Amino acid sequence: MFLSPSAGSSSAISSGLLTDDPEEALVTDCDIVVEVLGGEHPAVEYIERALDAGRRVVTANKEVMAKHGARLLAMASERGGEIFYEASVGGGIPIISPLKRDLSANEIGSLRAIINGTTNYILTVMSGGAEFAAALRDAQQLGYAEPQPADDVEGHDAAYKLAILASLAFHTDLHPDDVYREGITRLTPRDFRYAAELGYAIKLLAIARRDGDAIEARVNPALVPEGELLAKVDGVLNAVQVEGDLVGRVLFQGAGAGALPTSSAILADVLDAAGSIVQGGRPSPWRYTSDIPVKPMAELVSRYYIRVEVADRPGVLAGIGKAFGDNGVSIASVIQKETDEEAQTAEIVIMTHAAPEAAVQASIRQVESLDVVRQVGNFLRVED
Amino acid sequence: MFLSPSAGSSSAISSGLLTDDPEEALVTDCDIVVEVLGGEHPAVEYIERALDAGRRVVTANKEVMAKHGARLLAMASERGGEIFYEASVGGGIPIISPLKRDLSANEIGSLRAIINGTTNYILTVMSGGAEFAAALRDAQQLGYAEPQPADDVEGHDAAYKLAILASLAFHTDLHPDDVYREGITRLTPRDFRYAAELGYAIKLLAIARRDGDAIEARVNPALVPEGELLAKVDGVLNAVQVEGDLVGRVLFQGAGAGALPTSSAILADVLDAAGSIVQGGRPSPWRYTSDIPVKPMAELVSRYYIRVEVADRPGVLAGIGKAFGDNGVSIASVIQKETDEEAQTAEIVIMTHAAPEAAVQASIRQVESLDVVRQVGNFLRVED
Repeated sequence: MFLSPSAGSSSAISSGLLTDDPEEALVTDCDIVVEVLGGEHPAVEYIERALDAGRRVVTANKEVMAKHGARLLAMASERGGEIFYEASVGGGIPIISPLKRDLSANEIGSLRAIINGTTNYILTVMSGGAEFAAALRDAQQLGYAEPQPADDVEGHDAAYKLAILASLAFHTDLHPDDVYREGITRLTPRDFRYAAELGYAIKLLAIARRDGDAIEARVNPALVPEGELLAKVDGVLNAVQVEGDLVGRVLFQGAGAGALPTSSAILADVLDAAGSIVQGGRPSPWRYTSDIPVKPMAELVSRYYIRVEVADRPGVLAGIGKAFGDNGVSIASVIQKETDEEAQTAEIVIMTHAAPEAAVQASIRQVESLDVVRQVGNFLRVED
Repeated sequence: MFLSPSAGSSSAISSGLLTDDPEEALVTDCDIVVEVLGGEHPAVEYIERALDAGRRVVTANKEVMAKHGARLLAMASERGGEIFYEASVGGGIPIISPLKRDLSANEIGSLRAIINGTTNYILTVMSGGAEFAAALRDAQQLGYAEPQPADDVEGHDAAYKLAILASLAFHTDLHPDDVYREGITRLTPRDFRYAAELGYAIKLLAIARRDGDAIEARVNPALVPEGELLAKVDGVLNAVQVEGDLVGRVLFQGAGAGALPTSSAILADVLDAAGSIVQGGRPSPWRYTSDIPVKPMAELVSRYYIRVEVADRPGVLAGIGKAFGDNGVSIASVIQKETDEEAQTAEIVIMTHAAPEAAVQASIRQVESLDVVRQVGNFLRVED
């Protein structure tokens, strides 16, 4: 509105007001401190000092908010300050503020999100037939992936963001270490082809779901039905779907990263902080009011996609069927997908009905022990 | 969160506090007045009285906010009250608050929205091959359409909502009478079939776009490229896409109507109003700061889809081509779609390059005057 990227605002700021020494900035008598350093240290210490001085702090720091959010929010409340962090998740997509304000009358049932643009880009390329390594190189060449890509492709970044969103949605302090995490490196183009034949896209989903007295919290690649909007969020875009008891399902979608989208969120927070100062109110306190345990992954109930490489000979299906049956897992469909006549191997894709994760894992171990099985190529959870 | 639909909160309210007389409610010394009457009168008078008394008002009333929003916002500012109206557009989808707060640092370039669930349901049914009348009956049987459906199918409802959103996005007072409006009654299953063959869905879009010193503001059925998320918003769902200079394109999607989604928005506004009272700040003033003229439709520049029924004989294309050429409209493609050999008629679908509306309308009149042309079956704008 009043600050456009082309306006070159810094050129209008007298150099006497600028410093590259954070210490100097922190002792200044200012109303609002904006932290855009990134990384855990020393950012968290700077934020603590600003909050301790009762200031309003605006931060884009997902790692700090995921690991220290509950403590910093409590600190802000105690000292009469406030901490704003819209830019920490989903770039410029409004999602923190909607969870805090617009959906506040709802009991949130679940959050399902594509909140890492790097992996979503890689998966989009792989859905066109590319191997993981090639898609990663492509993403690196375009600047979407880091030279050391583990933070993104192993799901750490998404786990931080999920911890922030789930803590807000469920009014609890969910630590990123409590988020179960699987990356995307095990996926192959065949998984995408088979999933597509079955009517699914594969997305790295960050999922938090209320289940009785516990919450499910996980980041994993998942089969998403093609008809769902989440399945159609491609490239570097991000999307967050929230399900509330009143509102039903709402989806927020847009660019999840980049300097301009991030500045949109930071400036909105700064304007909000400035507005509350001008209007003379006390900052709104925000604390997590409940302490909800995280459900162990073994107790997750889901449908599963399992790809098995087998010897192409009679009796294979009987053995596999028995392995699942022994563990009480009901099979929805079995399809023999590809046969390599020379190697005398075939590939089988199994879709299960909803079953506990522990039982499916036990079935997979039993399948792997069969003589006729070369290997279990992959298994993925299905998000219907 | 604290008010669930099953909680039956009214049963806990003493009957002495309840009244069916609005006069009695208005003279009560309360902090927040919630208006959910609907319709222009007497709702607007009640809201005025509450604002005049300096109260905070929460309303779900799109007609009142579209027609009187600028005046009511100014009145609230003057009298130290505030008016909240998240529920007036898009049911429970957060969109008013994101425009006021989360996207406030952006210069908004455009809004494109599917904000009438009734028509979106009808168009979704028609895309499967149904005629308009049958799809409308279907919607009426399901309770999605009124017995007198003009408000929805002629685009009035969408025009109200667009006026509200565009006024916020462009900080101006856009009156619903200034929104150009076309309904969906002219559409036929053939339009959907041809559009699909060309790679488009047909949606009733509410569009507001900044164009230099003016804004485009219109509600019309439009061809939307299949790859866009807006093309995939089906059934009674609503979606609003906002394009800002910093944030890029963000999309908000969800249920656009219904008692529970609407209550989600109303309660969020009530909690917001209550929070600002508790925190002791003055209400945030909001006024439209600019007065931007609406661009005449004749000056709109768009691509067009035109379906023409013609006699199936030589020379037809030459005549049609000349009509467009005479008006300076460049044709991108002409496809002969269907021929009825008995009636010796054929159907031609023309896609133009971007051209001014006035020139396209003149071309269409010229085409209609040709001997070989039975009629221009339909023309639709293309939203690339």
